[in-house]
Amino acid sequence: MFRTNTCGELKITDVNKTVTLAGWVQTVRKFGSITFVDLRDRYGITQLLLNETLNAQLETNPLGREFVLQASGKVTERSSKNVNIATGEIEIAVERFTILNKSITPPFTIQDDTDGGDELRMKYRFLDLRRNAVKKNLELRYAVGRSTRNYLHENNFMDIETPFLIKSTPEGARDFVVPSRMNAGQFYALPQSPQTFKQLLMVSGYDRYYQIVKCFRDEDLRADRQPEFTQIDCEMCFVEQEDILQMFEGLVRRIFKDVKNIDYTEVIERMTWEEAMWQYGNDKPDIRFGIKLNNLKFPSHTFADKENISSIITSDFAVFNEAETVLAICVPNCSDYTRKQTDELVEWVKRPQIGMKGLAFIKYNTDGTFKSSIDKFFTNDQLKNIAAACHAVAGDLILILAGAEEKTRKAASDLRMYMGTTLGLRKADDFKLLWVLDFPLFEYDEDGNRWVARHHPFTSPKPVDINTMINNNPAIENAAEYLKHPYANIKANAYDMVLNGNEIGGGSIRIFQRELQEKMFAALGMDAEEQQHKFGFLLGAFEYGAPPHGGIAFGFDRLCSILGGSESIRDFIAFPKNNSGRDVMIDAPSTIDEKQFEELQIRLDVK
Amino acid sequence: MFRTNTCGELKITDVNKTVTLAGWVQTVRKFGSITFVDLRDRYGITQLLLNETLNAQLETNPLGREFVLQASGKVTERSSKNVNIATGEIEIAVERFTILNKSITPPFTIQDDTDGGDELRMKYRFLDLRRNAVKKNLELRYAVGRSTRNYLHENNFMDIETPFLIKSTPEGARDFVVPSRMNAGQFYALPQSPQTFKQLLMVSGYDRYYQIVKCFRDEDLRADRQPEFTQIDCEMCFVEQEDILQMFEGLVRRIFKDVKNIDYTEVIERMTWEEAMWQYGNDKPDIRFGIKLNNLKFPSHTFADKENISSIITSDFAVFNEAETVLAICVPNCSDYTRKQTDELVEWVKRPQIGMKGLAFIKYNTDGTFKSSIDKFFTNDQLKNIAAACHAVAGDLILILAGAEEKTRKAASDLRMYMGTTLGLRKADDFKLLWVLDFPLFEYDEDGNRWVARHHPFTSPKPVDINTMINNNPAIENAAEYLKHPYANIKANAYDMVLNGNEIGGGSIRIFQRELQEKMFAALGMDAEEQQHKFGFLLGAFEYGAPPHGGIAFGFDRLCSILGGSESIRDFIAFPKNNSGRDVMIDAPSTIDEKQFEELQIRLDVK
Repeated sequence: MFRTNTCGELKITDVNKTVTLAGWVQTVRKFGSITFVDLRDRYGITQLLLNETLNAQLETNPLGREFVLQASGKVTERSSKNVNIATGEIEIAVERFTILNKSITPPFTIQDDTDGGDELRMKYRFLDLRRNAVKKNLELRYAVGRSTRNYLHENNFMDIETPFLIKSTPEGARDFVVPSRMNAGQFYALPQSPQTFKQLLMVSGYDRYYQIVKCFRDEDLRADRQPEFTQIDCEMCFVEQEDILQMFEGLVRRIFKDVKNIDYTEVIERMTWEEAMWQYGNDKPDIRFGIKLNNLKFPSHTFADKENISSIITSDFAVFNEAETVLAICVPNCSDYTRKQTDELVEWVKRPQIGMKGLAFIKYNTDGTFKSSIDKFFTNDQLKNIAAACHAVAGDLILILAGAEEKTRKAASDLRMYMGTTLGLRKADDFKLLWVLDFPLFEYDEDGNRWVARHHPFTSPKPVDINTMINNNPAIENAAEYLKHPYANIKANAYDMVLNGNEIGGGSIRIFQRELQEKMFAALGMDAEEQQHKFGFLLGAFEYGAPPHGGIAFGFDRLCSILGGSESIRDFIAFPKNNSGRDVMIDAPSTIDEKQFEELQIRLDVK
Repeated sequence: MFRTNTCGELKITDVNKTVTLAGWVQTVRKFGSITFVDLRDRYGITQLLLNETLNAQLETNPLGREFVLQASGKVTERSSKNVNIATGEIEIAVERFTILNKSITPPFTIQDDTDGGDELRMKYRFLDLRRNAVKKNLELRYAVGRSTRNYLHENNFMDIETPFLIKSTPEGARDFVVPSRMNAGQFYALPQSPQTFKQLLMVSGYDRYYQIVKCFRDEDLRADRQPEFTQIDCEMCFVEQEDILQMFEGLVRRIFKDVKNIDYTEVIERMTWEEAMWQYGNDKPDIRFGIKLNNLKFPSHTFADKENISSIITSDFAVFNEAETVLAICVPNCSDYTRKQTDELVEWVKRPQIGMKGLAFIKYNTDGTFKSSIDKFFTNDQLKNIAAACHAVAGDLILILAGAEEKTRKAASDLRMYMGTTLGLRKADDFKLLWVLDFPLFEYDEDGNRWVARHHPFTSPKPVDINTMINNNPAIENAAEYLKHPYANIKANAYDMVLNGNEIGGGSIRIFQRELQEKMFAALGMDAEEQQHKFGFLLGAFEYGAPPHGGIAFGFDRLCSILGGSESIRDFIAFPKNNSGRDVMIDAPSTIDEKQFEELQIRLDVK
């Protein structure tokens, strides 16, 4: 061993011990004939004091930043203590040292506030990983993984490895494929998730399975997506939805406790997908703050405030009258917004990313009066009615968006989030969990005039909808009236876990009956032959005593990034890829040899 | 939840409790108007008693093997107890039951001694996994993984994930490659091991890294190889060989304790590669028994018994005189072998797998006389001398092989193992660990007239050999005299851990100096350009303060199979592939769609 101790552990109680440390030179400070060196390792920083005698050696072999140094000497009490670090009360009076390896000057500083840009840090990721900020992220990731494994172990889950070289059955996302040399002309696929394998394990009776496992999707990488990502993948049998919700509430509470020392004892809220869409405008609402959406027109939905509609639709304001949807949010304590501030909000919703034509507002002043951008179309009573519909109180600012339903809902959600951020309501150290339930089972695919599975093709409908699914033909006769098809209203036995406005996990109770699974595949446009080719093994397995089962998968990278208070999953991955799917450090992907093409019996066909 | 209890937990103390169980029907036994059902789940088997009332229901809906059943009723004491199972004292007096799913008749019985052949069981692996024998293997695998993680965690190791989509740098084994859609014409490779990434993590200062991780090699599959396999992959920095040996002796002792409840407290033996090769004839000797090899001729090696050579080489026996090597093993207490038995041994060594021309033997009879197949060439004194050289005592049988060195050594090793098995010396419940040390760093590659790395190109030579390596040109001028090249005698700072004759782990202290690493790459025939293209990132990293480091990787599948007392790793993998790399259950690899070819911009070119 090159050391007796780490750079993070020596304390005042160790004074007079003779120790050997090894680590990296963080800083070198020369004061006349003595030199101070901050030596860094994974565990901390310890100050070394090199006296006059050793300075001669330093002159022949000068130390530089990031040199690897081994130093032996006596622990002594510091004259000027540093209370900010664990070893701040001591230093090492060095008796001898060895330079174990030199370093050329790093392209950026190894500090929390480094001067290196993103690209440079990715190219020299092995240096970036030395920075404390990055190390803390990987330590948090390890702690989340460890906590997860412990909890699941205590609850009788078994870690069972599923294969990486599987079969290409693209549904939704694209597969990465791997040419097989031994089976020329054929390909493996890398798993988008171990979905079918974990279901087979349930058929095999391994009633509580988990894995922390890499998954692969060959998709164009929007910001903060990675072609390879990690899932906490779980499945249970002989369970219903409620069992899964409780088991994994327990997991997340345990992670909060183990990793953040937070006792998340409060009830975890639950909300249907419809509630989420109408009250928050999206299916993963950030419930750290209120400012819910109020549906002011033709409420097609129970959550809209029906009584207060007439006041608006009786007005002459064409923008509202002609709009499919009118949504309002009530921002607390902002009735004193200046003209400049409301103008900025109007510009904000008009940006291409939001794409609205405008924004109406009503100031419910603290003196009880109303001031509105739509004064000339609405009487004071009408404004009052709108305010009441929005549950506004004096001092609030009501913001109103009108337009096509989907777009307006998304804009209202974005505006809500923007106001939440502006008003400081989305606190990084505040964590709010939420289950979103009762998703639609299907979405309509216009191009194919068919159904697509909203979650995935293995998700079961709600028990009450099973007969609807089995007894109806999934084919859509009349595209224009697809909403009237019995399949349009089938709800999924599915659930998402949301943390601070991010989906951290999702799952469902699965189909376990061959007949129902075939109906599902048929709804997705697969004929019997295609079903057999792609999923024959699963349909077959369902004939040999498949138990009721369900599961969930958590996005491990995302979960870590939220717990770490970061927007970017990349910060929590040791060796991430960039937006083109490249690892710029090792320069991958890259060309392969002619011999490899020959052995694999493939050719390039680049256009 | 479909159950209140599992099928493995109810005891006599639970009598009178009302419970609900869910599981699979193992057997149905009808006795007049009552029916006994053995219900099975992951945890065990519980007997259900269905009374006369329920029998009517059974007649409408008969139960079959592997049906999924939910049954509620009262725990009662059995009249005839079964002491062989944990729940054998009780049964459930069923009050109501539900068939959760039916099963068609399984293609083989779900029992320890199943009637299903290998192929059938692989095709229906989801049924095979239900068998207790297979389940025990996966449970053992999980226990080994859990024990490993706990030990490494307690020793400050961090689990850090390394990427799966990396760069193809084939050295030795073939890479599996993955065409990149976003970078047309380029390919990722799947890692053969996370070797370079774990070394970069050491450069980054994560001084104790581990991962239980899938690795991939596209090799023709000899028996018991898998294209994807799992490693316990570890690396440490600021360590020397001794530190690694001790740390991982601790790991294996811990696994023995946690998984097998064995206190492996004895010293773990160590042996140099040369010792292993001369005393046991191979580099992973099974040291559960002795019967070492004795080198009877021209010993080029310190372990041969020099004094007793003359007796042989002075004989007229041409077979020995002309042979490059003569090796003898002394089999205890077998001097009474019959003619038939010795003839069988002669036939055994002549089989094509062994390929020797013959076998000489000397019986050292219990009365002190000698009887030998080579009587006419050797005097009694000469036989006595050979016996002495072999440390034989009266009652032993000496078996002698002669021929070319490598072949004879391998044959002697095989014969030794065969005798060990025959004599029952290789006991399944006896475990003997061994470190093999001081491997040669290089092997000679005749085809390329160059060196290949015996372990891998990142293994450091022994400290005393570093200068030899740096100060000599690796090029081999005279192929015939490659043994005289200074590189031929360089020893590696490498170690293998051997368990009962199987290599379960191997590793090395790594090169961490750019100059030495370049010399190694050059020895392997890589010019500067190729070095830069393939490993530029690593050579670059070595310039920024790389610490001394080393590591080890354990073959997780193999380790589990040995601990589980099996010859086959396949039994310890949930979803293994066959010898053609096929998953016959899901039928992978398989063809992909035309659209996938177009997107990836590749074509088949099958000859």
